[in-house]
Amino acid sequence: MPFDTIWTHAHLTTMAPDRPGLGIVEDGCVAARDGRIVFAGAAADLPGDARATETINCGGRWITPGLVDCHTHLIFGGHRANEFAMRLDGATYEEISHAGGGIASSMRATRAASEAELVASGLKRLDHLISEGVTTIEIKSGYGLDQDTEIRCLRAARQLGRERAVSVVTSFLGAHAMPPEADGDKDAYIDRVCNEMLPAIAKLNLADAVDAFCEGIAFSPAQTARVFAAAKAHGLPVKLHADQLSNLHGARLAAEHGALSADHLEHTDEDGVIALTRASTVAVVLPGAFYALRETQAPPIALFRKHGTHLALATDSNPGTSPLTSLLLAMNMGATLFRLTVDECLLGVTREAARALGKLHEIGTLEAGKFCDLAIWDIEQPAELAYRIGFNPLHARVWHGRSPTHFSN
Amino acid sequence: MPFDTIWTHAHLTTMAPDRPGLGIVEDGCVAARDGRIVFAGAAADLPGDARATETINCGGRWITPGLVDCHTHLIFGGHRANEFAMRLDGATYEEISHAGGGIASSMRATRAASEAELVASGLKRLDHLISEGVTTIEIKSGYGLDQDTEIRCLRAARQLGRERAVSVVTSFLGAHAMPPEADGDKDAYIDRVCNEMLPAIAKLNLADAVDAFCEGIAFSPAQTARVFAAAKAHGLPVKLHADQLSNLHGARLAAEHGALSADHLEHTDEDGVIALTRASTVAVVLPGAFYALRETQAPPIALFRKHGTHLALATDSNPGTSPLTSLLLAMNMGATLFRLTVDECLLGVTREAARALGKLHEIGTLEAGKFCDLAIWDIEQPAELAYRIGFNPLHARVWHGRSPTHFSN
Repeated sequence: MPFDTIWTHAHLTTMAPDRPGLGIVEDGCVAARDGRIVFAGAAADLPGDARATETINCGGRWITPGLVDCHTHLIFGGHRANEFAMRLDGATYEEISHAGGGIASSMRATRAASEAELVASGLKRLDHLISEGVTTIEIKSGYGLDQDTEIRCLRAARQLGRERAVSVVTSFLGAHAMPPEADGDKDAYIDRVCNEMLPAIAKLNLADAVDAFCEGIAFSPAQTARVFAAAKAHGLPVKLHADQLSNLHGARLAAEHGALSADHLEHTDEDGVIALTRASTVAVVLPGAFYALRETQAPPIALFRKHGTHLALATDSNPGTSPLTSLLLAMNMGATLFRLTVDECLLGVTREAARALGKLHEIGTLEAGKFCDLAIWDIEQPAELAYRIGFNPLHARVWHGRSPTHFSN
Repeated sequence: MPFDTIWTHAHLTTMAPDRPGLGIVEDGCVAARDGRIVFAGAAADLPGDARATETINCGGRWITPGLVDCHTHLIFGGHRANEFAMRLDGATYEEISHAGGGIASSMRATRAASEAELVASGLKRLDHLISEGVTTIEIKSGYGLDQDTEIRCLRAARQLGRERAVSVVTSFLGAHAMPPEADGDKDAYIDRVCNEMLPAIAKLNLADAVDAFCEGIAFSPAQTARVFAAAKAHGLPVKLHADQLSNLHGARLAAEHGALSADHLEHTDEDGVIALTRASTVAVVLPGAFYALRETQAPPIALFRKHGTHLALATDSNPGTSPLTSLLLAMNMGATLFRLTVDECLLGVTREAARALGKLHEIGTLEAGKFCDLAIWDIEQPAELAYRIGFNPLHARVWHGRSPTHFSN
């Protein structure tokens, strides 16, 4: 049976776990049928009688797995440029808050937006990520903070996956912040998250996972554990915004609940790193927020290496602390600010990001059986993808076997 | 006489010096004839009988002057991604140098490149800058370090201006680093720069200005002064890489020679700031290099404000310390890392960058008589241009009155 497509004359970073580093194959090719990879390896190993409906000569370019952005808050109303300007003009956080700024500002704008408006504004950000080779994106709710708006945000996220040739994985993040109508009663709000919002969202199949923000300014470990228990009762995997601003032992908490990932982790200690590693919970670092907040404590990269923790990185695209819509730039920031190696950066936005979404069986490497999601790059070596700043060498993007000539975006 | 084109239904940041801040005009329009602005202001002030060959409704978008990147090293051979990867893998500077890395690596690749190859690789970087609304770019030589290659680089820079609808301003930077064949004899090399290279380049009219790198690892103030004297003898304005890594009083030196700009300035002291201000020498800050080198001492922004120094910012696009090809990102870095205000960032890539090139009479503001170079943005407020990270809201770019429908890039 012929292949649908063969991409020839390419160098591959297969990211295959049984190969060292990036799993590089020089002079390789990729063959696909019915949207899945049938062969990815050395051209010399392709059967001599292999035929395909379409053969694409990549002219010596590099093929990586399609990029995976495993942590975004892509759906929200408005933006916070005004607040950004006020801070630079010397306004204090109190003054900004008094002027209606902060997360409450995004919540109001999100509540005021229709689903179509949320889709339209999200598409602009998504299109920028897609233009850099992203083929799978995680999108969280968490700017609605009431049941109707959280549902509307998750519907909008799902809709993005229908509007574009991209896979969308959703997370319900009701436990992101306190809505003003909750009057500061965090336990009562968590009750609502667990007993009303989550059941309704699970019933509608709008969430692929459940996330929470465990922090002094957000929710306690005990409140987070209640959210996790409710997620488990609905058969949903969990993940956590952990130890970003202080060490509440969020990493350990996430590991104890078998979380897919624990994210941020600037203040995680060695106990937390060991717990993550044992639970195979992926450590997701988010250098965009670190940069934008001008943080000085980086995540414990040396401990991740010492213990062999799975390590991914993502944009954290959001209107407040990381208005970043470039996964290539997230890689450069990971290298520059956290001293991640090039291999760690590239694995962190492919194989390890797929693992962080529980999708490693479907995406994240160039291996037979997985979806044929590819990014084809005009580069001479993979390191260029992390080295360049504000540059996009994408030549073509392939999602589920379809190359750019087959769809409009 | 009718206009060629009127852009209507726009908000303007005129950057006009007789208006406060960004010189904002809501509900404005711009009219052009023969490539120059004839009117820029409130729509209500446009004569009622104004007619144009073409009227473009901007739909409420914002128009800024076309962006000006006033400090780049855009022309060079090769790249330094491998060195970037080696550093992250733990290699020392000695090991990288031993492996042939550093500026010597770029010099060898530049010497080995033909003019056509230099144009081709420069075009990729230029196209990214153009895609973000840049209409004028300064390009330095300085990776050739011998007469033939310096000339070839400046020819390639001039050629970029013929390949694209963009204005190119060139600087001869022979005094950038020491070529290996000079055997460490800096004075002898400066002799060659002043007595051989500069006269040849001036005769060919390849340089619009002369630049130098005054630093312990480069050239001394006395050597720099000799370069400046030679430039003056050829009627060329000067500029300086000053006080980046240490305070050699480069800012004062630049001011004493009436330099157009002094660039970097991380270590400039108040005397230097006062000297720059008195000489109307523009302070050009380069946050990309600060970011990539993980510097901790920012330029003296507070002193620039105190004394009213003209302040611009630029990408410093180069293969080693700032492989950055996004002027929008340079603005975000200026705001995030140097705490520049939004107005300082936007003026710094328009009016003040034009001043830094000695071109304020022709570009940099939306005022009658200047070239009609425009950037038209899909934004709700100008602050978005500095707030977003890795996002490009450019709607259209106009160079000398020609909108994108009139040329191919």
